[in-house]
Amino acid sequence: MSEPPAAAPEPTQAPAAAPPADGEAGPSKKGAKKAEAKAKKEAEKARKAAEREAAAAAQKAASGSAEDLAKDNYGDATPETRVDAERVTLKNIGEEHLDKTVKLRGWIQNSRMQGAKMAFIELREERAWTIQGVIAASPEGKPVSKQMVKWAGALKLESFILVEATVKKPLEPVKSCKVSNYELHITKVFCIASGPEVLGLGLNAANKPVASFEDEEPNSGAPTEAVENLTIGEGQPAASLSTHLNNPAMHKRAPVQQAIADVRMRVRKLFAQYLDSKNFVQFEAPCLIGAASEGGANVFQMPYFDTSACLAQSPQFYKQIEIAGGRKRVYCIGPVFRAENSNTPRHLTEFTGLDLEMEIEDSYTEVIDMIEGLMLHIFRGLEEQCKDEIELIRSVYPSEPFMLPAPGKEVRLTFAEGQKLLREEGPEEYRNVSDDEDMSTPQEKALGALIRKKFGTDFYVLDKFPEGARPFYTIEDPANPKVTNAYDFFMRGQEILSGGQRIHIPSLLEDRIRKKGIDPASPGIKEYVDVFKSAGVPPHGGGGIGLDRVVSWYLNLPSVHLSSYYPRTPKRLMP
Amino acid sequence: MSEPPAAAPEPTQAPAAAPPADGEAGPSKKGAKKAEAKAKKEAEKARKAAEREAAAAAQKAASGSAEDLAKDNYGDATPETRVDAERVTLKNIGEEHLDKTVKLRGWIQNSRMQGAKMAFIELREERAWTIQGVIAASPEGKPVSKQMVKWAGALKLESFILVEATVKKPLEPVKSCKVSNYELHITKVFCIASGPEVLGLGLNAANKPVASFEDEEPNSGAPTEAVENLTIGEGQPAASLSTHLNNPAMHKRAPVQQAIADVRMRVRKLFAQYLDSKNFVQFEAPCLIGAASEGGANVFQMPYFDTSACLAQSPQFYKQIEIAGGRKRVYCIGPVFRAENSNTPRHLTEFTGLDLEMEIEDSYTEVIDMIEGLMLHIFRGLEEQCKDEIELIRSVYPSEPFMLPAPGKEVRLTFAEGQKLLREEGPEEYRNVSDDEDMSTPQEKALGALIRKKFGTDFYVLDKFPEGARPFYTIEDPANPKVTNAYDFFMRGQEILSGGQRIHIPSLLEDRIRKKGIDPASPGIKEYVDVFKSAGVPPHGGGGIGLDRVVSWYLNLPSVHLSSYYPRTPKRLMP
Repeated sequence: MSEPPAAAPEPTQAPAAAPPADGEAGPSKKGAKKAEAKAKKEAEKARKAAEREAAAAAQKAASGSAEDLAKDNYGDATPETRVDAERVTLKNIGEEHLDKTVKLRGWIQNSRMQGAKMAFIELREERAWTIQGVIAASPEGKPVSKQMVKWAGALKLESFILVEATVKKPLEPVKSCKVSNYELHITKVFCIASGPEVLGLGLNAANKPVASFEDEEPNSGAPTEAVENLTIGEGQPAASLSTHLNNPAMHKRAPVQQAIADVRMRVRKLFAQYLDSKNFVQFEAPCLIGAASEGGANVFQMPYFDTSACLAQSPQFYKQIEIAGGRKRVYCIGPVFRAENSNTPRHLTEFTGLDLEMEIEDSYTEVIDMIEGLMLHIFRGLEEQCKDEIELIRSVYPSEPFMLPAPGKEVRLTFAEGQKLLREEGPEEYRNVSDDEDMSTPQEKALGALIRKKFGTDFYVLDKFPEGARPFYTIEDPANPKVTNAYDFFMRGQEILSGGQRIHIPSLLEDRIRKKGIDPASPGIKEYVDVFKSAGVPPHGGGGIGLDRVVSWYLNLPSVHLSSYYPRTPKRLMP
Repeated sequence: MSEPPAAAPEPTQAPAAAPPADGEAGPSKKGAKKAEAKAKKEAEKARKAAEREAAAAAQKAASGSAEDLAKDNYGDATPETRVDAERVTLKNIGEEHLDKTVKLRGWIQNSRMQGAKMAFIELREERAWTIQGVIAASPEGKPVSKQMVKWAGALKLESFILVEATVKKPLEPVKSCKVSNYELHITKVFCIASGPEVLGLGLNAANKPVASFEDEEPNSGAPTEAVENLTIGEGQPAASLSTHLNNPAMHKRAPVQQAIADVRMRVRKLFAQYLDSKNFVQFEAPCLIGAASEGGANVFQMPYFDTSACLAQSPQFYKQIEIAGGRKRVYCIGPVFRAENSNTPRHLTEFTGLDLEMEIEDSYTEVIDMIEGLMLHIFRGLEEQCKDEIELIRSVYPSEPFMLPAPGKEVRLTFAEGQKLLREEGPEEYRNVSDDEDMSTPQEKALGALIRKKFGTDFYVLDKFPEGARPFYTIEDPANPKVTNAYDFFMRGQEILSGGQRIHIPSLLEDRIRKKGIDPASPGIKEYVDVFKSAGVPPHGGGGIGLDRVVSWYLNLPSVHLSSYYPRTPKRLMP
């Protein structure tokens, strides 16, 4: 009973992890292949319908002809259904369970009948733990009857079931399952929640790279790609981002998505862990604010009782109030919002900000040191703690490992040095880039490639950004007011953090606000300046990291929409 | 030079921590006392102005008459200002620093001249660490000159300064300071950021109980209570919540507010720590959603590109999608929003939700067990880890210690049992309370008092709420459909968590949606039901905790607005 499903004579439901069938249409090859696939699908559909009818008839005949001695051992679960056996999880299954009766629960990832008396059911738990289950009719009709095998073999994919089984060694390892050294000989099986007739997104497709990043909300009139439940397997073409997001349960069941989520949460935890160890205190910044904190462009506004409110674009103001309020070092983790009508793989309207702010003792480079240490802690932590997840993700979305600088060889260039590098060694079109203007995204990427080649790192800092490229609250370099004590951090040529030293003297702040053409008395600005007037505030600086970008660019994912739990874009607010 | 300021002949600026002066007007006694205070204040004002003039004249005379040998040892700090000495923090100051030269930074909490040649400057760091500094003119004119003492003694309260000093033992402990066994003999002093002429809220007032919870935003026309800088001390009356919130830097510098913030953040950390240890995974729920998740009342709505968006009232839907997406146990921490026009000490329009959801194996009581263990972990963690903070908070806002049940004596009553208790042992007006209707807030509080008396605990669970009191997604008790598998958790008679088992079978869910008079095809609802149709979802349950309420009610604070970092109410969006 250890024959792996892949070797079965009727490979309709070959295990999800087996190699793709030959000649399968890829997402990019359409036309003829598509028509062929459709015909195949319909033939399959007809065949399945016939099969189901036959199964029902057989069951009816069986129930009429002989008593079902196993009838208490299977069926739809009720609130009273219980199985008395040791509860195991696949992650923890081991030699001590061999030949023991255990119970476990999971989703049907794959199943197929082997003749009329045996079925293979592949069971899955969280984080892609899978095991092969075998159910075979007992000669004496119990604990397993032929009717029971038939019923179990007809359960829908992605049903959630409870089984009682004896743990056995398969004759040879079950390669298609993560638990390959054991299999389950099922003696009871109850369906707790059935999967649908037709899966909107099969697990196999859900675990493939997203085929297209054009996204339409559900009910927008865009066609959905329904996949016949019983034709799951390698045959499934990759699905569009729309199909993924419109089928959140299946999208999230895909091992690759669980691995991305695990990496994301690890970044969050590593961020907090490092800062906690450096005596930062966490705080909470509000989302609802009275006036746009940074100018007014791209702000969501809404009616708020007798007035109107905005959604915060960053916790900048609030981090600084915490410092003014007597905290030496603070951080916060929370949602931030941008009402930008950009439909690109780099944009979200709601994303997670990892923000920090700290007192400066002598120089703002203390802040750069801190953030550099923080980011390296995160990157090294991922390498150590998320090895398996990263490997799994790379098997779906291939990427070069993220190159870190050797200890002591961290790369910090001034903005001007970066521009010089671009002019002297970059592509032709950047021969004339200026030290006084901010870089464009392509320029940043070109510089990232140069730095990778020259210094062997995907992570680096640009410092001393030009005055014109930074907001009003940034302090100018006392030695050269054309530049600021402000920096960006980069990953693979893309900015993930922007920060700098802030002006802590109210008169200087008002001067610079005026210099930027803003009225210091305007709403939001006045309250900001007032804080610095209300009590002496220490020099301070900090930065804000986009969590979605860190995750996406560390893994080199094709879109930030893959790393967000519930991506929000101009076109998507559901689910 | 160790004479504590309290014993000084001219106690104008007695240390903030000294006992209140006799006969001081309390916040509730107005009229005559107020007029008296005003007169006193004005006299004081005049006296100070004269003093300042005299000081300026003296300084001018001094600078004209003799060279200032200490002129490099004081003044306003510039970006180049450095002090070469070991950097210490007050928390870590110890015997090893005795007679050593150190540097440190902090706020001037109090200061006063002692004759013309000496000044006392009380320095404060984060978390109310304070120390007495003494600056005395050297006979030879350096390192400290008379001019320097004068300058330092005239520095504004709440200025942020850098000092170089020798650590000395005072003759007797400085009772008014947290560091009482050492004092600083100052040899250099630089002002990094000056405090204002007039503090909008003095530290002493900021650390008193809030006098009134009526709140008006800044610029709303309501008078602000300006406090003369130099009259700080016990004389300051308590300030209103408005004044506190309109002076965020000073409000947050108050030791009581820093302690409340520390307790709040400890609750957050204990919550995450416990669930991490129970194999929960954290995730992020969105704030922006396409349709109101729970009915549509009290929802903030806003224009969103071509459509409109709402702000999430809870992460309910998203926690369930995570479970449907194959996670066994999840939690999230984030802002939630209620557009409720309630101006009470219990209400906020934005608050922090601590939410969890988990698979159920056999019974929803597994979820109650988990949450009960979680809350006890939080309460015991606070008792152990926040002893000092709680004590400090109680010194300002007195409260009875929070009573926990003895281990194994946790209190869980059914809703019906609670009602019976109210009917039989509660106040007269609750003789007829019904088992089928939800409780009012006064009813809950009365029951809380009864349970405290009877069972000796401020923490308990009510289970099996009536069907009518719970939302459509709550599962009915299979044994008695008049009640649900749903519970509330209470602290001091006030609900802090609401939760239950959710319906995981789509047909049952649609039945109950219809029973509640909702159309299963309505926006938001359809997408919700579709998730359960799209794949088999395990039985699950959970709950949502209001962080603001847990903190406020654990400490028995008079208002949740004191525990929020930036309270949001119908009247307040600033700062």
